[in-house]
Amino acid sequence: MGGGVKAHKTGAVQNGAAAYLEKARTFVDQCLEQSLPPETAAPQTLHKAIRYSIFAGGKRLRPALAFAGAEAVGGSWDDAAPVACAVEMIHTYSLIHDDLPAMDDDDLRRGRPTCHKVFGDAIAILAGDGLLTYAFECLASCPRGSAIPAIIKAVAAGSGTQGMVGGQVLDLEGEGKPPTLPGVEAIHRWKTAALITASCEAGALAGGASLKESEIIRNYGQKIGLAFQIVDDILDLTASPETLGKTPGKDVRAQKATYPAVMGLERAKLEAQQLMDAARAELQALGARAQNLEDLARFVVERKN
Amino acid sequence: MGGGVKAHKTGAVQNGAAAYLEKARTFVDQCLEQSLPPETAAPQTLHKAIRYSIFAGGKRLRPALAFAGAEAVGGSWDDAAPVACAVEMIHTYSLIHDDLPAMDDDDLRRGRPTCHKVFGDAIAILAGDGLLTYAFECLASCPRGSAIPAIIKAVAAGSGTQGMVGGQVLDLEGEGKPPTLPGVEAIHRWKTAALITASCEAGALAGGASLKESEIIRNYGQKIGLAFQIVDDILDLTASPETLGKTPGKDVRAQKATYPAVMGLERAKLEAQQLMDAARAELQALGARAQNLEDLARFVVERKN
Repeated sequence: MGGGVKAHKTGAVQNGAAAYLEKARTFVDQCLEQSLPPETAAPQTLHKAIRYSIFAGGKRLRPALAFAGAEAVGGSWDDAAPVACAVEMIHTYSLIHDDLPAMDDDDLRRGRPTCHKVFGDAIAILAGDGLLTYAFECLASCPRGSAIPAIIKAVAAGSGTQGMVGGQVLDLEGEGKPPTLPGVEAIHRWKTAALITASCEAGALAGGASLKESEIIRNYGQKIGLAFQIVDDILDLTASPETLGKTPGKDVRAQKATYPAVMGLERAKLEAQQLMDAARAELQALGARAQNLEDLARFVVERKN
Repeated sequence: MGGGVKAHKTGAVQNGAAAYLEKARTFVDQCLEQSLPPETAAPQTLHKAIRYSIFAGGKRLRPALAFAGAEAVGGSWDDAAPVACAVEMIHTYSLIHDDLPAMDDDDLRRGRPTCHKVFGDAIAILAGDGLLTYAFECLASCPRGSAIPAIIKAVAAGSGTQGMVGGQVLDLEGEGKPPTLPGVEAIHRWKTAALITASCEAGALAGGASLKESEIIRNYGQKIGLAFQIVDDILDLTASPETLGKTPGKDVRAQKATYPAVMGLERAKLEAQQLMDAARAELQALGARAQNLEDLARFVVERKN
């Protein structure tokens, strides 16, 4: 996406965002390590399944957005740590449940057997239930106590039946039907963008955001959340298996509702770019403190896997 | 369980508890009606599945305990309404997931087809996920805001991997093995008693309980929670299908770990009675305000279905 001077700038930003993501990953992994019971705690199989799934090498984009959201309003990583853990737990539980035979029936996730292939369907369902429960327990430990109700409402809205869970239903119900733009947009907004939005907004609330600031960051999150899934659609069509780390072309074979399928590849790329620009424009009112949110917006659209 | 004068007293208490449960049921059903999206809200199938399962005619014991817990420390039903809704949502989600083919594989629940038989496994999994999410969203709306973190911790502890979810794992792992008393007690404490305990404790916290008061009510809850499941075991052996509203003898046929199986029917009855007495003794420090908790303790042990 772009070359010459722009490519140079892109590289620098990618490096900035990559370093930020790496730092966020290290920190949130330490926090998750402390938040979750050890594998030796009963019931051991259940805690093994939870740790197998959550320490599987994800990008930790959602935690990074929570940290950057807190920073953008003058808060600290410590303020947002419970949010960072919670949104990663919710993301992980959703992958475990989505991979089940009753849902998308996937055997592999990030190159390893899925949770239910290793531990069985029952343990996988319960590991997901356990992670979702821990997520809200985490949120209840946010240092800024007065923000907890608003944080929980934001995360629940993003992950519930009119957010991520509802999006999975729309996705399942859409299978085998010819995709339309409004249909694809609704699936992407609910299934992916809603939790990404909640990660940004809840991070900001945990960092002490005013009503106005949390609204700005919510608007930013909605835009990069949708852009993230459009880029996922694009990479599935264009990336090599080596770069992507998984087999591309899966969406086409599964006749999935994607942006390239309803508007073509070039218009989908433009759409993602425009969403990124609009997301960055939202941040102007927040000044320099929003730099990491801005870098992450570019990363979301310019990433190669 | 008892006759003559005691039976008379029992009858009166049963009537008191029955009226209280009926009042609690009416109120919590109104609150649930308002808390959950209508069937017409997208995704409709999901919201239909949620409402099909939660409005299926349960006893609403857990909400009643939450209300009585709040009353016992001088709080109101309005204080505890979000807790009452949340614990019923969690109870319902656990039934939906436990009934799945990957778990207990039950076709009928309270005389009606189970959620997954009507809506399919995928929607049933997602309906459970959605209910669990709404439960915590509800808790975040408790009027006594400063108590919300403690309320959430109590409910998460009771329903998570070292509570209800963990208990389901112990139950599944115990299948086909000869039951032992410590094994059965652990399953009952985790799978059933932990959420009942959390219902009482979180209700009390929502009603403004002091640390000492919430400890008393937690101790009460642990005792009646275990008693509740022992009585379930007993009724499965002794009740007629008409009284029980379902086919008795299921535990024996499934070789389930039960109290009568490890200590005989008479000792199991005595154990339940002693737990009830110990639970009632806990309440003495709370005075007359704990009357409804006391009546509910008797109901738990003396109920016929």
